[in-house]
Amino acid sequence: MAPHPIRILGLDPGLRRTGWGVIEAVGTRLSFIACGTVMPPEDGELAMRLAHLHTELAAVLRNFVPDEAAVEETFVNMNPASTLKLGQARGVVMLTPALAGVPVAEYAALLVKKTVVGAGRADKTQIRMMMKVLLPQADFETDDAADALAVAVTHAQHRGMAAMTNKLVSRVAAR
Amino acid sequence: MAPHPIRILGLDPGLRRTGWGVIEAVGTRLSFIACGTVMPPEDGELAMRLAHLHTELAAVLRNFVPDEAAVEETFVNMNPASTLKLGQARGVVMLTPALAGVPVAEYAALLVKKTVVGAGRADKTQIRMMMKVLLPQADFETDDAADALAVAVTHAQHRGMAAMTNKLVSRVAAR
Repeated sequence: MAPHPIRILGLDPGLRRTGWGVIEAVGTRLSFIACGTVMPPEDGELAMRLAHLHTELAAVLRNFVPDEAAVEETFVNMNPASTLKLGQARGVVMLTPALAGVPVAEYAALLVKKTVVGAGRADKTQIRMMMKVLLPQADFETDDAADALAVAVTHAQHRGMAAMTNKLVSRVAAR
Repeated sequence: MAPHPIRILGLDPGLRRTGWGVIEAVGTRLSFIACGTVMPPEDGELAMRLAHLHTELAAVLRNFVPDEAAVEETFVNMNPASTLKLGQARGVVMLTPALAGVPVAEYAALLVKKTVVGAGRADKTQIRMMMKVLLPQADFETDDAADALAVAVTHAQHRGMAAMTNKLVSRVAAR
């Protein structure tokens, strides 16, 4: 019997630009479904910008009905104001799939780069190149969409292991 | 004719504890309506904790139907990981009223302290004491709920000015 296809939504959060990418994984075979970038209006009030982000991502969830979502765990090496802004966008980006009943996994940026490029110090260009190799149909227009697809690919490769670990943990906990 | 009463929801965001407080302002007269603290389960996944926060605040909005909301603009003097966590909670706290059609104002923590205590360096104890003076009926159990009420009081005192400024700006912009 063929393995059940899993739809994965990858997300790269940001207040100015949030990338999203949907792939389908059947066993180890990956295929591109869709991707895009949400850009809330920059001149609006913060709450309205976050509402815009939520509304657009909720539409992506309705349109593409992913089974699971994955978000990059950005390591933060910037000033506190920028970190707070990123956090606010990230909160909305994690909340939106959760409200739609879709489980959300987190992956360290380092692991995403190692998974798709093979090196933790990969730059944006290398990630775009590898996405073109892994998902030839992908028509990403921004680095954010390419990063989102990279997170989805990372989840496809690591979800089995995470699921097994969780099962083991639950079994041990249940004893 | 008596001025129209305005219901204000004050919010003090945090991932472990988010304080909320509802007051009513009729002109300069303030009265306490309700307050509380949302405490998402600490052992859950981040997305589920944010969903818990959203669901509880959405219930507060349904139960008390505020006209306007106000959130403290925390100045961040902590490590990047804590700042990111606060940001994530803050994103959800700002999004929830916006999705209910309630405008969300932001106030610097310094302005909140100056408004309710008269000094920018006020501590938690002074804020609790002043809240007891300004809103004798208030039955806050946590510092977070007291802080949330302080933000609501700050908004009650500054909203007229903000509204006038916005009107002026709109008029000038419309020329």
